[in-house]
Amino acid sequence: MFVPGLIERKRDGGALQADEWRELVAAFQAGQVPDYQMAALLMAVFFRGLTREETAALLDAMVGSGSRLDFSHLGVPVIDKHSTGGVGDKVSLVLAPLAAVCGLAVPMMSGRGLGHTGGTLDKLESIPGFRTGLSLDETRAQVERIGVAMIGQTPEIAPVDKRLYAMRDVTATVECVPLIACSIMSKKLAEGLGGLVLDVKQGSGAFITDAARSLELAQTMIRLGEDRGCPTVALLTAMDRPLGRACGNALETEEAIMALRGEGPEDVVEETVALAVEMVMLGRGAPARGRTGAPGDRRTGVPAYRRAAPDRTAVEVEVRKALSGGKAAEKFQQVIEAQGGDPAVVEDPSLLPQAKEVEVYYAPKGGTIQRVEPRIIGRAIIEMGGGRTRADDDVDPTVGFVITARPGQPVHTSEPVASIFARDRAGIELGRRALDRAIVIGEGKAESLPLVSARVTAQGVEPLA
Amino acid sequence: MFVPGLIERKRDGGALQADEWRELVAAFQAGQVPDYQMAALLMAVFFRGLTREETAALLDAMVGSGSRLDFSHLGVPVIDKHSTGGVGDKVSLVLAPLAAVCGLAVPMMSGRGLGHTGGTLDKLESIPGFRTGLSLDETRAQVERIGVAMIGQTPEIAPVDKRLYAMRDVTATVECVPLIACSIMSKKLAEGLGGLVLDVKQGSGAFITDAARSLELAQTMIRLGEDRGCPTVALLTAMDRPLGRACGNALETEEAIMALRGEGPEDVVEETVALAVEMVMLGRGAPARGRTGAPGDRRTGVPAYRRAAPDRTAVEVEVRKALSGGKAAEKFQQVIEAQGGDPAVVEDPSLLPQAKEVEVYYAPKGGTIQRVEPRIIGRAIIEMGGGRTRADDDVDPTVGFVITARPGQPVHTSEPVASIFARDRAGIELGRRALDRAIVIGEGKAESLPLVSARVTAQGVEPLA
Repeated sequence: MFVPGLIERKRDGGALQADEWRELVAAFQAGQVPDYQMAALLMAVFFRGLTREETAALLDAMVGSGSRLDFSHLGVPVIDKHSTGGVGDKVSLVLAPLAAVCGLAVPMMSGRGLGHTGGTLDKLESIPGFRTGLSLDETRAQVERIGVAMIGQTPEIAPVDKRLYAMRDVTATVECVPLIACSIMSKKLAEGLGGLVLDVKQGSGAFITDAARSLELAQTMIRLGEDRGCPTVALLTAMDRPLGRACGNALETEEAIMALRGEGPEDVVEETVALAVEMVMLGRGAPARGRTGAPGDRRTGVPAYRRAAPDRTAVEVEVRKALSGGKAAEKFQQVIEAQGGDPAVVEDPSLLPQAKEVEVYYAPKGGTIQRVEPRIIGRAIIEMGGGRTRADDDVDPTVGFVITARPGQPVHTSEPVASIFARDRAGIELGRRALDRAIVIGEGKAESLPLVSARVTAQGVEPLA
Repeated sequence: MFVPGLIERKRDGGALQADEWRELVAAFQAGQVPDYQMAALLMAVFFRGLTREETAALLDAMVGSGSRLDFSHLGVPVIDKHSTGGVGDKVSLVLAPLAAVCGLAVPMMSGRGLGHTGGTLDKLESIPGFRTGLSLDETRAQVERIGVAMIGQTPEIAPVDKRLYAMRDVTATVECVPLIACSIMSKKLAEGLGGLVLDVKQGSGAFITDAARSLELAQTMIRLGEDRGCPTVALLTAMDRPLGRACGNALETEEAIMALRGEGPEDVVEETVALAVEMVMLGRGAPARGRTGAPGDRRTGVPAYRRAAPDRTAVEVEVRKALSGGKAAEKFQQVIEAQGGDPAVVEDPSLLPQAKEVEVYYAPKGGTIQRVEPRIIGRAIIEMGGGRTRADDDVDPTVGFVITARPGQPVHTSEPVASIFARDRAGIELGRRALDRAIVIGEGKAESLPLVSARVTAQGVEPLA
């Protein structure tokens, strides 16, 4: 294998063969291909893309670089959700226990904050004592015992992805559909899933702001999953404003707890329910490909008596009941307890770390809220100490915002529209300046995306709004 | 300086400011910017190019990363030649001593094999004992004493270029006009030249195969040189077939010696003479910009009595005489002796290392030689062990080809058209398969480029054929 020749071929618009990708990834993993060659190749991929066959080959090589979990002995469907990342997105904290209560096994592997977006691991770690760094054995045991574990990528899972991801982050090669798809799917397929639900964000706060390209990302991941026996469905959801009100790690954990207690903001609850319904539908053998019968059975381990297509309305009723009845909250307590955290936070969220400085932000003028820009909010949290500019930065869980203003809402001058949570006065000032830019007040009707705009499967795109 | 932001800007078609290039190069030199970020940036530059201002800023940063030679005290014109690289191009070995015999000081700094092309240093090192790794002090002393030194890039000369060049070689970012121009000119300007002649290769075996882009390269380098007080002229020469007959390090050194003894192939001799004439013309104050008088004087240190424009025909006669009369061969012996090699190779080239296996290659069919593809030949030499796939590979000087077939020449079936020189039978087989592809025999007239097609100066392009 002559690596410069492979880079050159990709650079000039050609394609690498499947075995070339396999050998390349293996050599990279073995330290025989230096980082700078891989970085040059990734930049060439950024410009030239990958063919369908190349994407599949790269994915398989990445999955093959590590271990795969196997939960088939449990006899219950193993389903996960993945979000492409946003601001204020605390859905995983609500959804994982909720899906487990609905009879699914959920080995949820999440990430840390990336770019302007937050990360589920950072949110969970705002709970005093919570450990996200479980070993694969601990993860297996916990999923067997309570049906759900919420962990970070272990060293055994797609280790090549871990290295590529870190490199892409600092070489301006993140925003590339096939590379994003391979990175996400390599981790998810290694979880040994029987089904996967994708939350693909759209709008100015998504990683991919172009609607056509975010749909392309969804369809690429769906194809990769389906072709590998993992039924995959995507919901396209709004990230033209933060999800919910709280933005910042401990604040979002608190809001997730409120949602588990039936007191969450409507958008957080509705998006969580929509994703949970998709997970349960997949788990009960609803064929993602639109076929019925054996495939669902073979792939998801669904018992024969459940082979008939499940009733979506009945599933939704069941999901809402599990959430409002407190069972999902109890399950989250079990997760916290199992992972070393203080489960009392669910009863008393004030046990979460609290910001030193809090200040209310008032609308500087009257009118209609036109926009709340997630990117500005996300970047401000990083600047205030609540996210990373380098991989080894400490994160302050207490900082962030609670923004009650929603696009379309009328406001009067000096009406409170947000609160700023910071470590010190300088942080408050940073936050205030960010809100001045992020919250756009004007005249006329505000335009915003529907919360869930479409459901995407291997069959096509089904508009939901 | 946020490097991922710089990479992203270039990736998206923007330009870096001059001070950003300066800071980036300084940080890279100081080890604060990892290789993989630079590799990603270089690939983005490959796709997006550099503006004129960026090219100048990068060049100045590269020159400024090291020392500069100064030969102004010698009172003789200091002139060098640089070739953009080809297959079978042993001109430097003939030209450097020839130019020194004609009264120029020639501190020739050359490179190693790059991509499919050979390198002057590798050729010189096929002479037993020859040292190309002279220090700057040794180089200065040798140029003062015998008028010429043939060395590799010393650690003091444009050290950042050295690292970038090594990285580009293995990341498929070689074929990029502004990067090539900066790399070449950074070394040449650091030599403290009073004039520079460029041999810009054209055709399928050149690094840049597109004629318009190779002219762009010539004009970019001419502008960079002239703007920095170094009169610069380029000849556009043919690289749609190997130059001369010998391809491979020791074989090419032998052919260069034959040329110095008046027995060289016509194309090697003619191209060498053409380049030598340009060097001497520049050295004698022929203004590269088309002006007369002071600039030539100030820049090249030409004595006042030679200020009148030199007579090109007289110069050519002088050059041919120096070559055919054996003076250039004597000078080459002096160079070899001064640099630790065995000068007896000039009398007896059989002292050069000899290949273990030699086999004649016969034309597989009759017809007219349509093409001899330099790229296939160059790559085959690498595969046979005579070039590098990694920077630290050892090079076997003995392997290569002697190809007597020239485009346009009629051949009969089974007529000998080449010889293969290899380490073992496997190498012979590799060589045979390469020749099967490289030597194209067909019917009808063959098309090939004129040996020297044009002379390019800051004034414009003067066709020569």
